[in-house]
Amino acid sequence: MAETTSTVAVASNGYSAQNPQFTLYSHRIGPNGFKVAEVLSELGLHYRTIFLDFGAGENGMKTPAYEAINPNGRIPALIDHSANDLVVWESAAIILYVCKKYDGEFRLWAPTLDEQAQIETWLMYQATGQGPYLGQAFWFMLYHPERLDSATERYVDETKRVLGIVQKQLAREGSNGWLVLGRITAADIAFLHWYLHIARIKIVLKDEFPIVWEWVCRMKERPGVKAGMEGAVFPEGATVLKT
Amino acid sequence: MAETTSTVAVASNGYSAQNPQFTLYSHRIGPNGFKVAEVLSELGLHYRTIFLDFGAGENGMKTPAYEAINPNGRIPALIDHSANDLVVWESAAIILYVCKKYDGEFRLWAPTLDEQAQIETWLMYQATGQGPYLGQAFWFMLYHPERLDSATERYVDETKRVLGIVQKQLAREGSNGWLVLGRITAADIAFLHWYLHIARIKIVLKDEFPIVWEWVCRMKERPGVKAGMEGAVFPEGATVLKT
Repeated sequence: MAETTSTVAVASNGYSAQNPQFTLYSHRIGPNGFKVAEVLSELGLHYRTIFLDFGAGENGMKTPAYEAINPNGRIPALIDHSANDLVVWESAAIILYVCKKYDGEFRLWAPTLDEQAQIETWLMYQATGQGPYLGQAFWFMLYHPERLDSATERYVDETKRVLGIVQKQLAREGSNGWLVLGRITAADIAFLHWYLHIARIKIVLKDEFPIVWEWVCRMKERPGVKAGMEGAVFPEGATVLKT
Repeated sequence: MAETTSTVAVASNGYSAQNPQFTLYSHRIGPNGFKVAEVLSELGLHYRTIFLDFGAGENGMKTPAYEAINPNGRIPALIDHSANDLVVWESAAIILYVCKKYDGEFRLWAPTLDEQAQIETWLMYQATGQGPYLGQAFWFMLYHPERLDSATERYVDETKRVLGIVQKQLAREGSNGWLVLGRITAADIAFLHWYLHIARIKIVLKDEFPIVWEWVCRMKERPGVKAGMEGAVFPEGATVLKT
């Protein structure tokens, strides 16, 4: 495979930037679409992104046109044009599909079922144990129509508890500074993007979770990750990228 | 494979009820351990269950002994004694591991990556789009230290929205009454167990989601599912099993 940068390969299967293999439905602020874009970019796969809006407007997620693709009316969803336009939705399911089918060099995936189980454990921990609770912390601090301190506190505390476990995992003996298998995997990518917004809920990674912060700084400079972030919007307060 | 009942096979790999292949850490009320037990039982695999308590007590999930197994201090976790005591945690990751490695007959799994992606989409939708929100509905209705009506309403509404999508999926043309692939898969098992408790948050499946209710009734009578439920406790209000 020819490489355009140190880590982003050019796919050799006939697809190109002009004729992409995938269509990805995403949102400019929501982290879940960027997780997928970062995985695709790290693997050198070509995709076009359609950024949707929240709600039922013309370009919205809650429209019959989009709900025919993803009945849950949320991003992300991926269409694989090389597989009879197969639709996969839920970011963790998309990451599994892409890695299993297109990461034959095991850049983010692994060859044995026992190694895959370790990646999947942390991929699922992000999807079910971190993402939803972080999302609720954002909701109650920034969007809920009334102020509910004990609900906000519940989710900020849970976010910090999870961050403590992630930090311990990154710092353990033999980690090489990665979550599992002593190298970057799809699990690292899955955890990253939420952290780029986390200053909005008043968590300062650099001070409170310095080992996580160091890993974020390393991750976000990867050419594949950077390419996957194209089009992302970081609202005021999400200052992690500028620090 | 010899069968002890119509659907529960006896594993032929030398393990037995007296010498089980797996140790499963679970909780008598929490649904996530039973999802795994139901998958293991459906596949005729032998396991012993250790039921833990919440908290940091002698038999608790927040103890150094258990956190050495699952650093997140939650159930479930699975130890595979046939794979050098490999530990897998997070129910969705465990289900993927068990199906990929031990469901060679594709009772709950599928041979092609495109079919697997459909199972994984719904498995992930349960893990990240249903489970956490249902859990929050239980929390705010039954356990939160103060009454927060707008938070309770948020999660009960979201639970009903998801139930509506599940019902539509079960009722679609060609479904055969199952979530994907026109037959039972691991995705169906993953969705089931939460619904056995759902009357506790005042959702009456039989009246509000009759197609989901019919599917629940069919699922819970399967010998594999019944065997997997052994040891489950259903607190007052979780009347679905008695109806």
